[in-house]
Amino acid sequence: MKDVLERIARITPLDTDAMERARTRQGQLTKPAGSLGMLEDIAVQMAGITQQPLPRSVERKAVIVMAADHGVTSEGVSAYPAAVTPQMVHNFLQGGAAINVLARYVGVRVIVVDVGVAADIQHPGLLSRKVALGTANMAVGSAMTRAQMLEAIQVGMDVLDAQVDEGIDLVATGDMGIGNTTASSAITAALLQTPVALVTGHGTGISDEQRAHKIRVIERALERNTPDPHDPLDVLMKVGGLEIAGLVGVIVAAASHRIPIVIDGFISGAAALIAAALNPTIGAFLLAGHASVERGHRLILERLGLSPLLDLRLRLGEGTGAVLAMSLIDAALHTHSEMATFEEAGVSHELTHE
Amino acid sequence: MKDVLERIARITPLDTDAMERARTRQGQLTKPAGSLGMLEDIAVQMAGITQQPLPRSVERKAVIVMAADHGVTSEGVSAYPAAVTPQMVHNFLQGGAAINVLARYVGVRVIVVDVGVAADIQHPGLLSRKVALGTANMAVGSAMTRAQMLEAIQVGMDVLDAQVDEGIDLVATGDMGIGNTTASSAITAALLQTPVALVTGHGTGISDEQRAHKIRVIERALERNTPDPHDPLDVLMKVGGLEIAGLVGVIVAAASHRIPIVIDGFISGAAALIAAALNPTIGAFLLAGHASVERGHRLILERLGLSPLLDLRLRLGEGTGAVLAMSLIDAALHTHSEMATFEEAGVSHELTHE
Repeated sequence: MKDVLERIARITPLDTDAMERARTRQGQLTKPAGSLGMLEDIAVQMAGITQQPLPRSVERKAVIVMAADHGVTSEGVSAYPAAVTPQMVHNFLQGGAAINVLARYVGVRVIVVDVGVAADIQHPGLLSRKVALGTANMAVGSAMTRAQMLEAIQVGMDVLDAQVDEGIDLVATGDMGIGNTTASSAITAALLQTPVALVTGHGTGISDEQRAHKIRVIERALERNTPDPHDPLDVLMKVGGLEIAGLVGVIVAAASHRIPIVIDGFISGAAALIAAALNPTIGAFLLAGHASVERGHRLILERLGLSPLLDLRLRLGEGTGAVLAMSLIDAALHTHSEMATFEEAGVSHELTHE
Repeated sequence: MKDVLERIARITPLDTDAMERARTRQGQLTKPAGSLGMLEDIAVQMAGITQQPLPRSVERKAVIVMAADHGVTSEGVSAYPAAVTPQMVHNFLQGGAAINVLARYVGVRVIVVDVGVAADIQHPGLLSRKVALGTANMAVGSAMTRAQMLEAIQVGMDVLDAQVDEGIDLVATGDMGIGNTTASSAITAALLQTPVALVTGHGTGISDEQRAHKIRVIERALERNTPDPHDPLDVLMKVGGLEIAGLVGVIVAAASHRIPIVIDGFISGAAALIAAALNPTIGAFLLAGHASVERGHRLILERLGLSPLLDLRLRLGEGTGAVLAMSLIDAALHTHSEMATFEEAGVSHELTHE
């Protein structure tokens, strides 16, 4: 507990001076003012995060995929059996999943972490930091103990720190865990104090009837556990997941190192919601990779004040949307540093007056 | 005339068999069905265009930037003086513009074509195919003669054909021409038979008052020229631009070679609108790179039935949004061909039944 709070206290706001200088430069580049839209905003935000008016391109990129299982799957909330979690972890380790393909294409390291898969997995490429064999069923009691939750957060901080040692300019959050949209909906409903139905979607592809059942299960979990909406760690412990706690650790640690974080879809969003509730300054270090189809995700982005970089109707998780968006962030920094200014190019800057 | 009509007649529909097989493969990849959203749609469309169920990745990419001037700028419709057109062409040739930076980042050849700049430009990197020193002022008469328009279309077809000789898997359209949002608004209003105000925006950054003036100028041009909404070439000749005609040639020629075309913003959209009006089958070869801030662009995309891949509040043109989107298209094809199937990865495919 001390560790995560110490990290959170260390986070300081964006550097407004670097941002102002980045904004001035954007106005000097050979294009109509503002015409690169969000690419300009990204450059300015990255300047504030890195405290550099001309932040270097984000060459060293990693996506941290936290995997864990969920006791609540025994309530029949998912379209897939829980056995798919370890199967997909194996797929990640063999390089055959969407996240592997996209990360190879964009040039991103994939770090796969077992923080709580309910099966024994041994693989040289896997970071084994298993806290438990999945969470307990939140529909009948707390998903985690306080010790488990804190350990999972610590795993996330440790994993991020190890990436800092290797060198990292930009981190993306990813997830794998059958049942984790259920946990994310529960977290979102609790923290935003919104009806469960508003933040509960079709996950990996359940029917309308199954979705109605999923909503009732989440409502039961919230009634049973009564998480305190003003205590994000209480919410995380009672209705969260080990991979979500791990991602909270990743986000907190990244912000403490002033490393920008690209959040993926709904599960990453739930983790970001908790992190930003612990310290609102963390929100300034976040970029939203994409808008998920999961309906709760848009409410999370609104609360965090984030505009998604992509809207491709993705609903896969794993970090896929975040990794795709990383290339846009890199592209934004390239335009910021490589474009000619009006003066350099001899292009007329004055506006026409009639 | 014969040449362009002959090309248009040569275009055949997408290969539905290849598309069906691509769709089947998407259902076998290790992800919930449909969870890669538009990336799946792209893979299927590319299969149909290339007549390959497993289209290879789009490694050889080019953006064709057509530059030309507009006589209507003498009416004071733009925030920038017309002199900026040749200045920006020089900037393209020196590699300092946004399109150069983004194309380098994504790995795209930049082909700059002078199809009608109102200044003498000599540069070894420039394709000089000047048809005229800009268009005539559409507010007082036809922007082009029929011969000029056909010659500009021919330039576009020739430029695309030369790229085919070099090898090309994917082409993007780009533009430069002070005053060309005015021409694009006029084309869009004429072809969609919609009020000018609905399709006229702030261009490079004019005030509300200047926009009102721009609308009146376009209304005057349409009244003076009375383009026939059912004759796309009549519309193009009377209120279009030489670079727009060039892009029509690029699009027609690319579709005739079964090369997918990524259209950029409003100006490219106006060219696509004309091309698709000449032969609706062309629409199936198009991908919309992004949604421009220019209000007419969304109406064009709706008419063409295209969903933009990006929505980053760009309004620069040059092909910038299209080039950024090219990496998403390539990423989509990589997932399509490189992801493991359920069978290959040993991942459970059956859905849970409670």
